[in-house]
Amino acid sequence: MEPSDGRSRVIIEGVEPRVEAGRFPVKRIIGDTVYVTAAIYGDGHDHVAAQVLYRNDTWHEWRSVRMKPLGNDLWAAHFTVDTIGNWQFHVQGWIDHFDTWAADLSKRLAAQTNNISYDKAQAESLEQGGSLQDKSDVLLAFLSGASLLERLATSSEGEDRSRLEEFSGSLRQLADQNSGRFENPVTEELTILASRYPDLRFAAQSNNYRIRVDRTKARFSTWYEFFPRSSGENGEHGTLRHATKLIPELASRGFDVIYLPPIHPIGHAFRKGKNNNVSAQPEDVGSPWAIGNHHGGHTAIAPELGGFADFDAMVSAAQDSDVEIAMDIAFQCSPDHPWVKEHPEWFSIRPDGSIQYAENPPKKYQDIYPLNFESSDWHGLWEELCNVFLFWAERGIRIFRVDNPHTKALPFWEWCIKKVQRTYPDALFLAEAFTRPHVMYGLAKRGFSQSYTYFSWRNTKAELTAYMTELTTPPVRDFFRPNLWPNTPDILPEVLQKGERPAFMQRAILAATLGANYGIYGPPFELMEHRPLREGSEEYLYSEKYQVRSWDREHINSLMPLLATLNDARHRHSALQQDDTLHFHDVDNPQILCFSKRSDEDIVLVVVNLDNSTAQSGWTRLDMEVMGLSRDESYQVHDILSGQTYAWTGPYNYVRLDPLIMPAHIFHLRGIGVHGSEANS
Amino acid sequence: MEPSDGRSRVIIEGVEPRVEAGRFPVKRIIGDTVYVTAAIYGDGHDHVAAQVLYRNDTWHEWRSVRMKPLGNDLWAAHFTVDTIGNWQFHVQGWIDHFDTWAADLSKRLAAQTNNISYDKAQAESLEQGGSLQDKSDVLLAFLSGASLLERLATSSEGEDRSRLEEFSGSLRQLADQNSGRFENPVTEELTILASRYPDLRFAAQSNNYRIRVDRTKARFSTWYEFFPRSSGENGEHGTLRHATKLIPELASRGFDVIYLPPIHPIGHAFRKGKNNNVSAQPEDVGSPWAIGNHHGGHTAIAPELGGFADFDAMVSAAQDSDVEIAMDIAFQCSPDHPWVKEHPEWFSIRPDGSIQYAENPPKKYQDIYPLNFESSDWHGLWEELCNVFLFWAERGIRIFRVDNPHTKALPFWEWCIKKVQRTYPDALFLAEAFTRPHVMYGLAKRGFSQSYTYFSWRNTKAELTAYMTELTTPPVRDFFRPNLWPNTPDILPEVLQKGERPAFMQRAILAATLGANYGIYGPPFELMEHRPLREGSEEYLYSEKYQVRSWDREHINSLMPLLATLNDARHRHSALQQDDTLHFHDVDNPQILCFSKRSDEDIVLVVVNLDNSTAQSGWTRLDMEVMGLSRDESYQVHDILSGQTYAWTGPYNYVRLDPLIMPAHIFHLRGIGVHGSEANS
Repeated sequence: MEPSDGRSRVIIEGVEPRVEAGRFPVKRIIGDTVYVTAAIYGDGHDHVAAQVLYRNDTWHEWRSVRMKPLGNDLWAAHFTVDTIGNWQFHVQGWIDHFDTWAADLSKRLAAQTNNISYDKAQAESLEQGGSLQDKSDVLLAFLSGASLLERLATSSEGEDRSRLEEFSGSLRQLADQNSGRFENPVTEELTILASRYPDLRFAAQSNNYRIRVDRTKARFSTWYEFFPRSSGENGEHGTLRHATKLIPELASRGFDVIYLPPIHPIGHAFRKGKNNNVSAQPEDVGSPWAIGNHHGGHTAIAPELGGFADFDAMVSAAQDSDVEIAMDIAFQCSPDHPWVKEHPEWFSIRPDGSIQYAENPPKKYQDIYPLNFESSDWHGLWEELCNVFLFWAERGIRIFRVDNPHTKALPFWEWCIKKVQRTYPDALFLAEAFTRPHVMYGLAKRGFSQSYTYFSWRNTKAELTAYMTELTTPPVRDFFRPNLWPNTPDILPEVLQKGERPAFMQRAILAATLGANYGIYGPPFELMEHRPLREGSEEYLYSEKYQVRSWDREHINSLMPLLATLNDARHRHSALQQDDTLHFHDVDNPQILCFSKRSDEDIVLVVVNLDNSTAQSGWTRLDMEVMGLSRDESYQVHDILSGQTYAWTGPYNYVRLDPLIMPAHIFHLRGIGVHGSEANS
Repeated sequence: MEPSDGRSRVIIEGVEPRVEAGRFPVKRIIGDTVYVTAAIYGDGHDHVAAQVLYRNDTWHEWRSVRMKPLGNDLWAAHFTVDTIGNWQFHVQGWIDHFDTWAADLSKRLAAQTNNISYDKAQAESLEQGGSLQDKSDVLLAFLSGASLLERLATSSEGEDRSRLEEFSGSLRQLADQNSGRFENPVTEELTILASRYPDLRFAAQSNNYRIRVDRTKARFSTWYEFFPRSSGENGEHGTLRHATKLIPELASRGFDVIYLPPIHPIGHAFRKGKNNNVSAQPEDVGSPWAIGNHHGGHTAIAPELGGFADFDAMVSAAQDSDVEIAMDIAFQCSPDHPWVKEHPEWFSIRPDGSIQYAENPPKKYQDIYPLNFESSDWHGLWEELCNVFLFWAERGIRIFRVDNPHTKALPFWEWCIKKVQRTYPDALFLAEAFTRPHVMYGLAKRGFSQSYTYFSWRNTKAELTAYMTELTTPPVRDFFRPNLWPNTPDILPEVLQKGERPAFMQRAILAATLGANYGIYGPPFELMEHRPLREGSEEYLYSEKYQVRSWDREHINSLMPLLATLNDARHRHSALQQDDTLHFHDVDNPQILCFSKRSDEDIVLVVVNLDNSTAQSGWTRLDMEVMGLSRDESYQVHDILSGQTYAWTGPYNYVRLDPLIMPAHIFHLRGIGVHGSEANS
């Protein structure tokens, strides 16, 4: 089949950035510069030109920016995404007849004025079989140019039009001239003017590519998780009111997302006892993830935590402290959830007519009913689930931590997140999917703003380097935003169980500096709780998931001062507020990890001893160029953790870190360029 | 927007092979096995299943082959493309409820029979919060299975249907049973039977991907180029009849494509003289690429070469010798070409009404009129150009060497090659585009079966290794088939000008073994012609492009015996008939290149001294695994060039090559596996 117009001769290939060849949007945050590249070429020797057309979905018109050649047929342009929401762009390429003509004319006139000798011309002529042009060729070239400008003039208006017509007229005059030599009539003004009216009749166009632009917190956020019911006084069951009291202090320590496990009514049927015991005692409070009882389900608040007035007060207190509440959305039901009676068709039914509980044969989990995404009423189910987000968004929540999204149909998430963000463009979603890489990436592509990662189990230099490099380079970094957690209520990793204080310090430092997004499951982390349910388990003993705990957060051994220092450094240093520039540097000791992040003039260099028991030393071999330094440059490194400053030179510098004192340096580089020595740190 | 069915829960990503995300077909040859891989996954713990559906475009129905899991959510299947033409395939994935059920049942029954002690069960139960199932769970599982099988039975017929119903019935019987223990009722027969009737109601489907399947010669061909007009006797102007006489000898030397420069009438206006002189003498014969005069254009034969009867006789003589004639199609016109009068609208018109000749300002080439692909009658131009191929295909030509395709609109080629291959599925096209990589690859993607390469200028070990690796690995190898030429009428590379006999030998050996497709511009190569037009030029002095030459092809110094040996080795060794397995091995001397190719049991190992003046020696470090050998295995290497055999062991072996004797070893490996020692060589 013929194309609609065979005269469209320009080829556009490999447009970047894109995810899965354009199937999904790339992710950016507000204010980002989007760098677009593509291979663009035509046939023959004609010059090509190209532009990027882009728009926010709410605009009626496209904006355009001309692309510039990088060489080897690659072209680039960039634009800024200055509002939250959905954007799109495509690339347009065309043969630039004016530019081709101007370049040829310049060669014609250069040959004329450079006085090429006859012998050289004859030799070249013998070689290439071409004759040197004569004066008539030059005169005809002026006329060709005049015609080109007349065409451009027809698509212009006003002053531009008359100038184009004037230029065209003077080219025609030149063609009538009989003088020996010609000056080049193509002025800078003409070049600029002509480029403003490209002849797009036969322009080629790439596919359209999408960009999801989120607010800054999608890329840079500091999470603190705690159970409101453990925030009571004197060991009593806490409430949202108690939780609200903690917010100003957490905010002052630099946390900006306060994440609460589910606050909905908790099921009674098959309720779990302390330490996940299958038989609960009457006083047991149950797991917040067994959602729903006669008080309601996903849009209700457990009465023991308070009511909507308390909730609203908490949200508003958070706003006052400039932090946000993140809610946990876990789409599963206790047998007492209202949906079970109202919509049994949303669940799987067993052959005996009962509802299928969660299973991992031969184990069964009778306190949980999973939803059936193959329900004949999948439309109704999708709507209801999406309404849960909309319900809480309506009450002021804009960050949702989604529990196990990988056990719900992936197409649902793509639809649901898009729908919620249509009404609430600032809504953010964190995927809690600790599963296989393709599934985690699949969820991120479908709209999750952030994702939990394997960081919790990456401990060695090789593991951390390989994993963080994968996450922070294309293609992954264009759709997946990592959020690093040293612990969660489900994950007390071996390194924390066995490593004592240096391990907690090291993991907090790694999370806070490797990840622009990081979080801790707060009280047990601050207080270095490290007793597992049993040997070999990653579950906490006396886990808050099944009982109320009381935490002495004022304890002298608390890690909170270190966490506050880390959070302060993150807020001061824009280098730590993104992951794209993460770069690992060599150190001649496999126990020492060294990496940098850079944001314009702000450079942070982190050196971590991964050995939690023994001091380690070594020599760095820094990639100076990555840090914007010349090979033998001298600079100061100021350690944010110790307050000490060292004078370093070039790539090779000695480091020694004793984990019992401080397992890491977080260096701010000073004395670099003109602004470096004045930078804040 | 909701998807059409939200119950379609399976995700299919990254289907391979594909070119530019499926925009272009991948290339294969007849008999190839196509290996399809994809990432396929669903939500939750349900098992997924997948199949590849494929068909030749002429079939009415799809064939299917089940995919197998490779781990990490990757799946694979393969099928054979057994006819020339256009194929397509896609991947289908679905939740396999039967397989999920069977796997769960097996775990249920294992727990039952393995007599898990109460303590261990309790410990696990504490850990995971699950209870162990009881007998009623197992009985209900039997009933669930029965229902699943009843559903599968409804889509089956005959014997299968009754067997499925029987299995379903026996599951229902088991559910009624009161015995203590159950055997697993899922037999191999049932597994196979159930997999034959997958429940595809909610299956997901990938995009469709295309495959162009060519005949074997697309991948493995041996080209010999000569000018028919130089095949006359006693220095007289040769004809097609003279040319025809050379065919049997060239065929006997192992060449299977005889490629002739254009045989059309040659223009008189601005005809070039000897050595590309701008002013021709009356006796000058002109360049065959200045096509067209009053005798006709691209569908005519120059009278001085003969007529259609001679042409047909030549084609038929070629068939008798089991070789093919490749024609040179150069879409450009002399000022005398009939199209110039009949279709001036197909050319660019200058402001004075004259037709625009070829230019590279300040040079002009008045003997050549380029076609204008922005012609208002581009439809007519495309049809006429395509008809040139169809005209010659009708007369028995199936291989076209296309001159400078990169100076014609690329969309034209995609349309034209597809159209020609619709009528002549065995038609092959070689792109002569010595231009930038994106453009060369762009032409290959649009349908060219083979492409000239930069091999002519790749001389060092680093250059050859990097370039040939790029060409023979994805993504390039899926759309670009290299054809390696040590020389052409336009290219007498420096290495041949300065290297004498060892250089010609080395370049022939490299071309013939690195490239399953290779060719030489024959007579000057055989006779080691190496005088350039002038110092620094790659043009031949007294080039056949502009004059008749006479060649003493029987000369005692001719390289033809070496070429015949190389061609014989290529025909005997399937390893040399493809490029996909090309692998470079280390040698501790930068002047020695070492590489292997392998096809099943046939392994060829080539060692070349790249220094044309001095003997070089070194130690190989062979990748034994690549050659299918164990680390310390002993084997024989038989040198096809010298006839000598050496006993080698393991990766480290000594080589010494004197270019004045023979610059290379072409080893056939013997004594490998059970078949190795009997292999032909």
